[in-house]
Amino acid sequence: MTSNLDFISTGTITTPLGFLAGATYAGIKSPSDSALDLGILYSEAHCAAAGVFTTNRIKAAPVTLCQRNLKDSRAQAIVVNSGCANACTGEQGLAYAAETASLTAEKLGLTPEAVLVASTGVIGRALPMELVRNSIDRITLSREGGHDLAKSITTTDRFPKETAVQTNLGHEKTAIAIGGIAKGSGMIHPNLATLLCFLATDAAVEPEFLKEALRKAVDVSFNMVTIDGDTSPNDSVIILANGLSGSEMIESNKPGSEEFEKALEAVCLSLAKLIAGDGEGATRLIEVNVEGALTVTDARMGARAIAGSSLVKSAVHGSDPNWGRIIAALGRSGVEMTESKTDLYLDNLCLMKGGCPQSFDRAQARAILNGAEVPVRICLNIGDAAATAWGCDLSQEYVTINSEYTT
Amino acid sequence: MTSNLDFISTGTITTPLGFLAGATYAGIKSPSDSALDLGILYSEAHCAAAGVFTTNRIKAAPVTLCQRNLKDSRAQAIVVNSGCANACTGEQGLAYAAETASLTAEKLGLTPEAVLVASTGVIGRALPMELVRNSIDRITLSREGGHDLAKSITTTDRFPKETAVQTNLGHEKTAIAIGGIAKGSGMIHPNLATLLCFLATDAAVEPEFLKEALRKAVDVSFNMVTIDGDTSPNDSVIILANGLSGSEMIESNKPGSEEFEKALEAVCLSLAKLIAGDGEGATRLIEVNVEGALTVTDARMGARAIAGSSLVKSAVHGSDPNWGRIIAALGRSGVEMTESKTDLYLDNLCLMKGGCPQSFDRAQARAILNGAEVPVRICLNIGDAAATAWGCDLSQEYVTINSEYTT
Repeated sequence: MTSNLDFISTGTITTPLGFLAGATYAGIKSPSDSALDLGILYSEAHCAAAGVFTTNRIKAAPVTLCQRNLKDSRAQAIVVNSGCANACTGEQGLAYAAETASLTAEKLGLTPEAVLVASTGVIGRALPMELVRNSIDRITLSREGGHDLAKSITTTDRFPKETAVQTNLGHEKTAIAIGGIAKGSGMIHPNLATLLCFLATDAAVEPEFLKEALRKAVDVSFNMVTIDGDTSPNDSVIILANGLSGSEMIESNKPGSEEFEKALEAVCLSLAKLIAGDGEGATRLIEVNVEGALTVTDARMGARAIAGSSLVKSAVHGSDPNWGRIIAALGRSGVEMTESKTDLYLDNLCLMKGGCPQSFDRAQARAILNGAEVPVRICLNIGDAAATAWGCDLSQEYVTINSEYTT
Repeated sequence: MTSNLDFISTGTITTPLGFLAGATYAGIKSPSDSALDLGILYSEAHCAAAGVFTTNRIKAAPVTLCQRNLKDSRAQAIVVNSGCANACTGEQGLAYAAETASLTAEKLGLTPEAVLVASTGVIGRALPMELVRNSIDRITLSREGGHDLAKSITTTDRFPKETAVQTNLGHEKTAIAIGGIAKGSGMIHPNLATLLCFLATDAAVEPEFLKEALRKAVDVSFNMVTIDGDTSPNDSVIILANGLSGSEMIESNKPGSEEFEKALEAVCLSLAKLIAGDGEGATRLIEVNVEGALTVTDARMGARAIAGSSLVKSAVHGSDPNWGRIIAALGRSGVEMTESKTDLYLDNLCLMKGGCPQSFDRAQARAILNGAEVPVRICLNIGDAAATAWGCDLSQEYVTINSEYTT
């Protein structure tokens, strides 16, 4: 079976057939500039839908509403705002999330249960509901609206994150597309479902399989990204599958299921890496591979601890080949390991072999640390499991951004 | 039973009877200035000894040596260097740690097994053994040498950390003292034993009880301090008890045991708070109380997650009352909680009550966040357990320090 997966340049969430989107300036994110901050994704046909949500005990009102509305695994639209998380807002927050869904349903001629809601922004402030009420009708939906929707969900992101792939599925090699948009870039850490990401596909997908495929794709992508170790109460990854490509129904272990999983994983990985590289204040993407581990769980634990270490991140920022911090982060991660068997590489440069420091060219190490992507590789040499995690460097700018966020 | 615990101004590790210390410039920390970087603590009598060490899977050579030499729960001296961690240094590192112990034993007329070794500094570099060999004999021991020893173990610390208390124990109310020194201030996180801390007492203490009392004191002090979430392979807390005060032998559940535990806890707490407030680049001490938890484990988990959150730390640095981050960190900590029962205070200012945001005076909140000590209080209102954790703000300076550490 040959893979026929292609990334579509300028692909976005409205690339798959039958998806429309749009966004407007409601004034939630900023009263002064005209940044897009309220948007809608709409499918022309009813969709199989699945979501993965934050594991934080504090759940934002829209997360609670989505979990309720996804019980039947069906949905047809998503409405999202940035600038206010609608988290820690009690009963009023839930009422506002429900009203946002109802207003959107009315506009689109849907039942409120077919609308999912997402929010991102400051926690603990009431959603400025009047602004939502006044603005929803101003949103114009179009097949080109994916880019505006991608912009409308950003907060401290430096750029919108969007991508799409196409592939052929099943006996008839039906062409299908999967598109997605995501936002970073603070409060991001793998102990949760993830950040905000919306995915759309025109493939016909059986809902249980869709849920399973989404969970798998999230596990190797968004759950392996860490910016700052903090997890948001709003994290949501949602996928809508409308079947408008005319593909056969994709089900677990049936023709096309593997290709679909691969394509979904490719979209999620692409968005996850965009998020990691655009971490608040980041100047580099750090990619950590842990190989030769006893279990995948172990490999994941080790890779995430290194990618998330403030000391490793600071050293990368300064291009300082202070590799002991990488090993120290690995050692505290809880991974099963034997110091005397462990090797450490920066790209292909060996810094430690069998637990012993190797003499290395510091200029070469600094050059690797200076690259846009910094590849760190650990060989534990005690098993066959491997995992990859992504993070970013820690800059003075991160502190500046986060010391003045609500002021 | 009235507590008669007194802190001794200018108290240090040589305050208890029979302890001598000294330090010298060996050139390990810096080839250019004359910073003290090699020191010895010596007791005139053989001591009961106990230690708590890093839980990192990567253990520095001196940690391995200490664990071996402490098997008989006896010791009489500690030799310590800063500037090189002697970690990730393989068999050679162990040989150098053993040689350092032997040289010290020879100088002091002890067996090598009576000497404990500690190191702090850059990981993955060979200990410059020639500098150690040339310098040990230059160390002059004295009753006033505690201050120099405290200085010699610092790295990025802005000031040496030292303290001592006196109390009266047992039927005869014998006066005893406990003194200690410690270093911070990076790679510090509660998932380990702790950082470098040496404690000395002239009380006579039964070794098993000494071990238990040390473990308890470390749990509520050093293990509740977090600077950056990273844990060092060198973390060691060691106590020597020489009995020279003439006190009765202090044993578990015997007269004086409770007072001894309290005094030891007071010394550890005092040093732990000094470390938190002197975290790399820190300008504030953050004290987080979590009350009304189901279990102490829960309360500890919640308090440490908040004190360790990069987003909370950045917000405190900028005096930004972005309290949603505090609740979000609590929510991801794993603590058992009910959002609608949870209250949040900055000092006595209520920001959230029963899960609902309260209107509050932002200027007052900013003033609290601007103080040298920032008290954060969470009331979970579902149980009786409580815990306190300490951390510091995250400043641009932290990044600057850690992006240029070995270069």
